[in-house]
Amino acid sequence: MEISLGQLALQLGGRLDGDDEALVVTGVAGYDQVVDGQVTYVREERHLPAAEASPALAIIAPSSVTRAGKPLIIVDDPRAAFARALQLFDWRRRPIPGVDRTASVAQSAAIHGRAYVGPQAIIGERAVIGDGCIIYPHAVIGDDVEIGADTIVYANVSIYPRCTIGSRVILHAGTVVGADGLGFEPTPEGWQKIPHLGTVVIEDDVEIGANVTVDRATTGATVVGAGTKIDNLVHIAHNVRVGRRCMIVAQVGIAGSSVLEDGVIIAGQAGVGDHRHVGAGAQIAVRAGVTRDVPAGAKISGYPAQSHSDQLRMEAALRRLPELLETVKRLERLLAEEGKGMSEA
Amino acid sequence: MEISLGQLALQLGGRLDGDDEALVVTGVAGYDQVVDGQVTYVREERHLPAAEASPALAIIAPSSVTRAGKPLIIVDDPRAAFARALQLFDWRRRPIPGVDRTASVAQSAAIHGRAYVGPQAIIGERAVIGDGCIIYPHAVIGDDVEIGADTIVYANVSIYPRCTIGSRVILHAGTVVGADGLGFEPTPEGWQKIPHLGTVVIEDDVEIGANVTVDRATTGATVVGAGTKIDNLVHIAHNVRVGRRCMIVAQVGIAGSSVLEDGVIIAGQAGVGDHRHVGAGAQIAVRAGVTRDVPAGAKISGYPAQSHSDQLRMEAALRRLPELLETVKRLERLLAEEGKGMSEA
Amino acid sequence: MEISLGQLALQLGGRLDGDDEALVVTGVAGYDQVVDGQVTYVREERHLPAAEASPALAIIAPSSVTRAGKPLIIVDDPRAAFARALQLFDWRRRPIPGVDRTASVAQSAAIHGRAYVGPQAIIGERAVIGDGCIIYPHAVIGDDVEIGADTIVYANVSIYPRCTIGSRVILHAGTVVGADGLGFEPTPEGWQKIPHLGTVVIEDDVEIGANVTVDRATTGATVVGAGTKIDNLVHIAHNVRVGRRCMIVAQVGIAGSSVLEDGVIIAGQAGVGDHRHVGAGAQIAVRAGVTRDVPAGAKISGYPAQSHSDQLRMEAALRRLPELLETVKRLERLLAEEGKGMSEA
Repeated sequence: MEISLGQLALQLGGRLDGDDEALVVTGVAGYDQVVDGQVTYVREERHLPAAEASPALAIIAPSSVTRAGKPLIIVDDPRAAFARALQLFDWRRRPIPGVDRTASVAQSAAIHGRAYVGPQAIIGERAVIGDGCIIYPHAVIGDDVEIGADTIVYANVSIYPRCTIGSRVILHAGTVVGADGLGFEPTPEGWQKIPHLGTVVIEDDVEIGANVTVDRATTGATVVGAGTKIDNLVHIAHNVRVGRRCMIVAQVGIAGSSVLEDGVIIAGQAGVGDHRHVGAGAQIAVRAGVTRDVPAGAKISGYPAQSHSDQLRMEAALRRLPELLETVKRLERLLAEEGKGMSEA
Repeated sequence: MEISLGQLALQLGGRLDGDDEALVVTGVAGYDQVVDGQVTYVREERHLPAAEASPALAIIAPSSVTRAGKPLIIVDDPRAAFARALQLFDWRRRPIPGVDRTASVAQSAAIHGRAYVGPQAIIGERAVIGDGCIIYPHAVIGDDVEIGADTIVYANVSIYPRCTIGSRVILHAGTVVGADGLGFEPTPEGWQKIPHLGTVVIEDDVEIGANVTVDRATTGATVVGAGTKIDNLVHIAHNVRVGRRCMIVAQVGIAGSSVLEDGVIIAGQAGVGDHRHVGAGAQIAVRAGVTRDVPAGAKISGYPAQSHSDQLRMEAALRRLPELLETVKRLERLLAEEGKGMSEA
Repeated sequence: MEISLGQLALQLGGRLDGDDEALVVTGVAGYDQVVDGQVTYVREERHLPAAEASPALAIIAPSSVTRAGKPLIIVDDPRAAFARALQLFDWRRRPIPGVDRTASVAQSAAIHGRAYVGPQAIIGERAVIGDGCIIYPHAVIGDDVEIGADTIVYANVSIYPRCTIGSRVILHAGTVVGADGLGFEPTPEGWQKIPHLGTVVIEDDVEIGANVTVDRATTGATVVGAGTKIDNLVHIAHNVRVGRRCMIVAQVGIAGSSVLEDGVIIAGQAGVGDHRHVGAGAQIAVRAGVTRDVPAGAKISGYPAQSHSDQLRMEAALRRLPELLETVKRLERLLAEEGKGMSEA
């Protein structure tokens, strides 16, 4: 794919500074990865020298940048413009619709019009694959699973029976949707399994990374709300309800029956205990461990998690702790001497 | 599946309070998920109002509950009764025994009588699949693997050669049993691989969640003891020995050669260092990091993990640390003034 | 495989102490796992009693060991000798080269001479599989992926299009290479996906454990340097650059765009924040959370991570914190009384 610099500026809704509209652009990249023929971008003026020193053909920049050693495309939001430019140069092609002859598709399954089912994918009994879906090789879609339109299921994904997947969802390779939750009763004969008869509902526009696990509910459904994005190796336990437009970063764990309201952001390697409620828009810091309910809009961190400002104060105090021990020792000595002094007096 | 309320009470060994035995029950569910036609349960009296307000047909309750706005099934242990009720309504059906024609089964493999091998599953040379096993699509069973009776292997599970899996075991999707442990010697030419010639032994009645990894031993065997239950995304390193009836929650890591005795419970995101010994019945709290041996029956938490009571005391002290810094500053000032006062005196 | 004890000593470059060279050796194992007919080893003299009490036929030992109740093979480095002995007894056989008839290989793919492609593996368009590679069943190799010579790809691995894998690489089961990184722009309509047009480059002699995720770069490449070893369930985010001969233990997460220089060692369950730089040879302790750049050669631990010695000092002080609170309370009381005493005086 190639377009002219002038066309690129037009597509990005930007203004080309200079008369280089005929230059041929072959791609876009960050300034530390850009190669000849590509355009780069800067979000802030202070990154301009690095972008100027790169082999980039031109620079997408905010209006605060007025001149540079290369042609400029001035836009309101350089990062959004960069995202749009990446879409222009997307080299990935949709597979041609149709069912590969090596796929195993149950007779009772319904594969809609323009869907693609790749080699050796498995489609279970009564499963429904919506229009425009892409089911990559070796994905396993269980019995009675329903998938909306234009959803992408990558290789080696496993979806257990009866789960529901919305439209425009992306499930990356190795992810498992609908395995039994960890539910066991202690008995004198050992752990007795609690059957998991519930399901999982993944709503529209969700993206889930690689090797994630979303467990099925005991009864009812484990739900991931519309527009939520989940990174790799995340664990969502049974009966959890994740709201809409949440962001859950890699290796986070959400324990059973917890509820995240809309717009919650959880940074990497954090954990949320079971039966917790996290209010809308709350932000949970990297590696935080949530042991209590979190109010809407709160920013919390640490373990046990507390308000981010309290945590910072505590961490600062902690760093002064060895010195504090010395101070107190000194005070004790002083007081002992004084005491002696006074009793001697 | 439908049964009458009277039959349900009978099956649960409970006493139906009222004359509604002819009501038709279509399922059971927790009171926050229950729908028309289903029965719910409460473990304690304080949950009764929520259950009464739900659309449930009737409530399974302990004998401490004497009356309610709905029919009651009085039982000794409501949660155990609920688990039994879930089994009654289990909608999952065993696949019909037999080997799918698209499975790849080595000629030297032995598939016993009533076993099922799904589409595109792989059964290696000399592998033994016991009576009543269910091998779901895309499971990969390596050469010389032996699996006992009535074991379930879900989609996309990988079992490396020579591992042994017991009877009534459940391995959820994406789990990997028998990959090489992390064993490398530093040499001037880089990390030299130590071959892993040992195996993995998963004993009877073990359940392992999705995307778990259990590494093979360098020599000998990594062992998961009978009746142990393991959640998703757990890592069990080479030569670890997990005892019987342990419970290991999601995202826990157990480093090489550590030993967990019987009945150990490890909560989510905790870690056990290498070559550690955890005594029988010990309980390791969520996110704890075990750096030393743990005595039998101990309850430990924190990182580095210590006794849970010491940890709670430390956490309480920690929350008072900023205030403590202030106090000591004040004391210093006081003493300095006094010192001055005294020298002036 | 059987060899005589004399031959084994010769192969290990060791000296056999005694006249038992004709004894038949059937394997090697650690002294807690060794069985009849096998040889064991000790790294230090203090482990000798355990090795002597084992059923081992003979003991590989350092020169500091001068006599024992069993024949000795004296070597310079017992652990390296043990690793070599394991190689001698390696029971694993390379599959016979060739492409299984149930594999799905694109016509435009190139499978080199002595490569093996197992049952139901998928090889995409224009993919290149180097000489001597072993592609196990159910591995999915995407379009335009290039793999060097003698690389092993285990079952259920997913490699997304355009990634490059070096020679002598080992990818364990369930690992995902090249899924999209977590890249989204907040917009009034929700999270807008940033296309990931970059790739992943895994250099020569890398070994990656089971169920690991290595995300593709936004632009450019996510790189894992030559000779680096990665354990199970590790997350490597988009645009990360891991140097050569690094060691990354299980369940570690490396966030986006961070750089690890050569020879970095990261212990289990640790995390490195995004855009961090970790200098050559730095060592990051188990469960550490790296929030700032790490100088070359530094040893750091804790969260937020600091120098290991500072962290130990802080942890020691922490354990004394409850007692410190008592001391300060006592000092306050003393001062108050004194103050009273003085004012009364």
